[in-house]
Amino acid sequence: MKIAKCIQLALILMCASSLGSTVRTQEATPAVRAPGQFNLMPVPASVQTQAGRLAITSTFSVATKNYSDDRLRAGIVRMIKRLAGRTVLTLPADLISDESAGVLVVQCDGPGEAIPSVTENETYSLEISDKQARLIAPTVVGALRGLETFLQLLQGDRDGYYLPGVKIQDQPRFPWRGLLIDVGRHYEPVEVLKRNLDAMAAVKLNVFHWHLTEDQGFRVESKKFPKLHSMGSDDLFYTQDQVRDIIAYARDRGIRVMPEFDIPGHSTSWLVGYPELGSAPGPYKIERGAGIFEPALDPTREQTYKFLDAFIGEMASLFPDTYLHIGGDENEGKQWDRNPQIQAFMKTKGIKDNHALQAYFNQRLLKILQKHGKKMIGWDEILHADLPKDAVIHSWRGQAALAEAARKGYNGILSNGYYIDLMFPAAQHYRADPFPADSPLTPEEAKHVLGGEATMWGEWVSPETIDSRIWPRTAAIAERLWSPRDVTDVNDMYRRLSVISQQLEELGLTHEKNFGMMLRRLANSDNTAPLRTLSSILEPVKEYRRYQMRPQTMLSPLTGLVDAAQPDSEAARQFASIVDGFISDAPRFALYRQNINDTLIQWRIAGVALGPMIDRSPALEEARPLATNLSDIAQAGLEAMTYLSAGDAATTQWRDTQLAKLDEAAKPKAALEFGVVGNVRKLVIAAAELSELKSTTPVEWKKRITTLATPAPKQ
Amino acid sequence: MKIAKCIQLALILMCASSLGSTVRTQEATPAVRAPGQFNLMPVPASVQTQAGRLAITSTFSVATKNYSDDRLRAGIVRMIKRLAGRTVLTLPADLISDESAGVLVVQCDGPGEAIPSVTENETYSLEISDKQARLIAPTVVGALRGLETFLQLLQGDRDGYYLPGVKIQDQPRFPWRGLLIDVGRHYEPVEVLKRNLDAMAAVKLNVFHWHLTEDQGFRVESKKFPKLHSMGSDDLFYTQDQVRDIIAYARDRGIRVMPEFDIPGHSTSWLVGYPELGSAPGPYKIERGAGIFEPALDPTREQTYKFLDAFIGEMASLFPDTYLHIGGDENEGKQWDRNPQIQAFMKTKGIKDNHALQAYFNQRLLKILQKHGKKMIGWDEILHADLPKDAVIHSWRGQAALAEAARKGYNGILSNGYYIDLMFPAAQHYRADPFPADSPLTPEEAKHVLGGEATMWGEWVSPETIDSRIWPRTAAIAERLWSPRDVTDVNDMYRRLSVISQQLEELGLTHEKNFGMMLRRLANSDNTAPLRTLSSILEPVKEYRRYQMRPQTMLSPLTGLVDAAQPDSEAARQFASIVDGFISDAPRFALYRQNINDTLIQWRIAGVALGPMIDRSPALEEARPLATNLSDIAQAGLEAMTYLSAGDAATTQWRDTQLAKLDEAAKPKAALEFGVVGNVRKLVIAAAELSELKSTTPVEWKKRITTLATPAPKQ
Repeated sequence: MKIAKCIQLALILMCASSLGSTVRTQEATPAVRAPGQFNLMPVPASVQTQAGRLAITSTFSVATKNYSDDRLRAGIVRMIKRLAGRTVLTLPADLISDESAGVLVVQCDGPGEAIPSVTENETYSLEISDKQARLIAPTVVGALRGLETFLQLLQGDRDGYYLPGVKIQDQPRFPWRGLLIDVGRHYEPVEVLKRNLDAMAAVKLNVFHWHLTEDQGFRVESKKFPKLHSMGSDDLFYTQDQVRDIIAYARDRGIRVMPEFDIPGHSTSWLVGYPELGSAPGPYKIERGAGIFEPALDPTREQTYKFLDAFIGEMASLFPDTYLHIGGDENEGKQWDRNPQIQAFMKTKGIKDNHALQAYFNQRLLKILQKHGKKMIGWDEILHADLPKDAVIHSWRGQAALAEAARKGYNGILSNGYYIDLMFPAAQHYRADPFPADSPLTPEEAKHVLGGEATMWGEWVSPETIDSRIWPRTAAIAERLWSPRDVTDVNDMYRRLSVISQQLEELGLTHEKNFGMMLRRLANSDNTAPLRTLSSILEPVKEYRRYQMRPQTMLSPLTGLVDAAQPDSEAARQFASIVDGFISDAPRFALYRQNINDTLIQWRIAGVALGPMIDRSPALEEARPLATNLSDIAQAGLEAMTYLSAGDAATTQWRDTQLAKLDEAAKPKAALEFGVVGNVRKLVIAAAELSELKSTTPVEWKKRITTLATPAPKQ
Repeated sequence: MKIAKCIQLALILMCASSLGSTVRTQEATPAVRAPGQFNLMPVPASVQTQAGRLAITSTFSVATKNYSDDRLRAGIVRMIKRLAGRTVLTLPADLISDESAGVLVVQCDGPGEAIPSVTENETYSLEISDKQARLIAPTVVGALRGLETFLQLLQGDRDGYYLPGVKIQDQPRFPWRGLLIDVGRHYEPVEVLKRNLDAMAAVKLNVFHWHLTEDQGFRVESKKFPKLHSMGSDDLFYTQDQVRDIIAYARDRGIRVMPEFDIPGHSTSWLVGYPELGSAPGPYKIERGAGIFEPALDPTREQTYKFLDAFIGEMASLFPDTYLHIGGDENEGKQWDRNPQIQAFMKTKGIKDNHALQAYFNQRLLKILQKHGKKMIGWDEILHADLPKDAVIHSWRGQAALAEAARKGYNGILSNGYYIDLMFPAAQHYRADPFPADSPLTPEEAKHVLGGEATMWGEWVSPETIDSRIWPRTAAIAERLWSPRDVTDVNDMYRRLSVISQQLEELGLTHEKNFGMMLRRLANSDNTAPLRTLSSILEPVKEYRRYQMRPQTMLSPLTGLVDAAQPDSEAARQFASIVDGFISDAPRFALYRQNINDTLIQWRIAGVALGPMIDRSPALEEARPLATNLSDIAQAGLEAMTYLSAGDAATTQWRDTQLAKLDEAAKPKAALEFGVVGNVRKLVIAAAELSELKSTTPVEWKKRITTLATPAPKQ
């Protein structure tokens, strides 16, 4: 499901985000897990520290015990390579057979399932002592998970690299932890998918949901119906060899590859080559816009099912996963309404509306899937009385819908709350739980909640930007799906997220390094300092507002400032934290004073420097009002700091002038918005409320400031 | 040729670099070419400005006239995509047929050669007026060259993007302009090669010399002798499908792909699977070290030639280029000396030494190449009385050897001066000319000088670092090989190089963006500022000293500080420039004073901050002495600035103490050396010589400082 229902979804998300967020972030994490000194993500089920440290030197070696195979050995070799990369040590690449000589012993009992599956055992334990590290797992996949934990434990000090003494017992909370990548709207080359599979493995995700077809592109080679990819893809599709290559690459990392062929809607690209399958005569052209489009397969003609039987048969033998995702979302049925033959069919069969017609279609489709040995998964919309119990409901609607399905006996996975294309901060995704503490489900029913998937919808991502839209935020979702429910400390999550984000770079991920590159191109210069300052506190607008504010097509360049800017601004989070400390330090106002002043001065300098830069770079013209806003924000903040530092209350007139400027600055421009306006607003209000400080406690005063600085909810 | 003769080569290079460098860099460039406001690289043969400017807006369109084909259309679409990326404009991707409506008209007369060849016509002309740009070329390849020039002309100001009015007539000075990439020592994935082919096309290089086999790896699939790649490559090889893909990709960009199979030496990896071809019994293992190794094919056995006949036959049909490079270098013949059968063979045949034996081998090899329709090219060593005149000499020895071959009627190309793995600055490569003004060759003889190739030998490059070793310096070599001989202004070259370097990033090149990523990994932190300051003025040691100072194997991680540091430090060049300005401003010493002080203070702060950073990151331990040096350099500089600013002469005792510290700092550590010591030395000496300023002119005084600051040549 995508775009449509966006308002509905946005409302759900906004409610979720306003629910007790501050309370939850302050929940304590049990000491047995993730002691502060570790950078483990996702946090294991159980972590106990113990004495000792295991030195990592150039004599590092790995021995395997009991079971070993090519997949395990390749996984160990990849781990050693990353360990060598971080430590700059030349490490022996060959495994040894003498268990007692291994610095790390990997003791594995068997291969696990031949084809990665939702029932795979991913358990492992890892014990590290002075002498040796011992990783024990029933399956190769469990061992691969443990190897990632092993790498995350690496630390360094004056005595060299080491792993701390620790006993870890770990297994996932949910068996289905996925990332959807939509390659329909924008094609992503094989190497982009591979590096994202590496990143998924690093945070223990185990399902790559490959959204292969869309109105805007049909991305997989069909030998049976070659016009699907040859006419529906602008020649940007995966050959079957490439598909097999990706599946093998994913399997090597213990990741399932589940394909999605979204029907009956979202199918314009199918109809370019095969208009006879459509519910209107055609001809059809590859869709270039964003939104919901009318084309839909004709569910009333036998030809459609004959085609699907052959096509699904071909794909079923290409993709070994048990599940095949049929989408099923956002078909509004407008083509059906206008087609007399379809209307006549419905009358004859007693099909009362389009929902029922789609249910009929799904029933026929289900039989085709069953014939080819696949189980069905689809979005909420597929839930219907006749749906067999081995189908899986993929919920964009939320936990309640998921619980409802579970009570009816259906397995389900959650994506509501994990729509990473909406540009919400990691903290918000982190709070979404597929099976929250207040769920009405019995433990038996709750077993139907299999997990969840982050969804990277592809309207506004290119190979250059997609990593920064997926990472690092998806690591927080990965933790939600793997770690115990009570691991909810947002501050600690962000601390670890920043470490993990950087480690993802060693796998080739570009989420961090492409930021500077994109700024250099925009500025047409190596000197991007002011632009970097500006964009570091900007975030792309949330939800689906980008397209409304700044319409583009699928053929537009994704090289603007909104594409360079990253969601979940770390600089804004840091600013919030120091402003909070500063206000809490009333009436002294010394804590972080210098830091805040330096930051504001940097903004003011950037605001001034941006003008000439924009003059030279018309691509930045849309950022000109943002540069003005930046100067205003800095000025308001600096004046407030002057009042507060001097202990001088500002006038209400001054305050109102500043707040008006800040209101202006808070309005999104160029599909970007500042992440710091609220905290400068706090400073301004604090300056104006300084005289109140005499008649109340600092704690009460701070509460007052916070309340006054919070904008009234919009009607 | 590689590694061996390194001392000899280093000497030649050092001589070349000391020859009148300052004189040449000050040569004026004729006004007709590369007027200061343009960023063209390579500089075209003729550029005339004219009135007007052509606006680039979202209505941009391209029409083709006369001849058009898939290659031309794909090239135009790629150009439009980059233009869109830079301007953030949604540009129509489809070409139009109405010539008068085209903002750019590409008028091409024919396809050019079916297989890119050394005789390809690459001429084009480009005229830009207010109304239209017109690109005229006899061949598609000429048009592709012109499209790159078109893109380089893009500028922006407050009125938007535009191209300036200009008339360009252009063709290359040399027909053979290559880049060798050695994938034998370290394998480079297909996407690395592709992005480098894109970069080559951007600077009009036209030969990708694919050095496919080495002692350390056999990188191409052989269906006839599968043990070559399966046993000789650690499974890191190109399938024949991938080879064809690369060849097509290169051809699309007007680039030849010339394979090299280096024999009879450099062949250990061949012998792992086929030890019977060796001159010693074996068994052989893939070589992991750097250097020259003994294994060589046995030139005395018919079996060797039978094998080569079949192998070359297979490769000749895989690679369409006319030329096949047989290497032929660095075979010291030690295995031959020790093999009684070979010695007996030489006696029987009257072959007097190993050089003659290799000539015999080459003669036999030549017949095999001829049989399969290929011309031979090899390093200097292959030059021999019996060599046919259509062979090409690839000279590592230098212009004199090239001239010698030319006088004998052999075509030749130059790589001496273009060894980019030696870490010399771009300016030095820029000065090396295949056919210098003082060449003894007649114009007729000079036609045998076909051009040159930059050589990226692969001992110390990984997919992560290779781009930064090739780019941007190779763009300066590309200019040397394309532009007229008298385009020699080094300062202007560097100005344009910096612009072009940034444009290469849009093609996916990582030479700039991986720097920050590697520092983050080394520091294990996002906060890399002090490390960035340090490494920005460090350069990897030149020539072949890295291996001597910091031995590694082919299996070692290339993730150390020496791998992150970039050759040809721009920060060091800038520091040299401001110190020169400051000294020239004697006795006022105001110019750049603040700038120099700020820089020195930044170094001192970094020197201090590095200690705790290194404590946390043992991988940086080798940089600890460099951090100390940095503090010393900064301190010496700051004290000198204090003397100079105050007009106070420093004592000789102070001077000697500082110079001793600087001498210590000048010693390479961790295979890195500072690029700024010489200029801080200047400041120190200037401070000590301040009293001399009263008795001489500022100009004389500056000369004296420069002389005193230049270290005596080593014995």
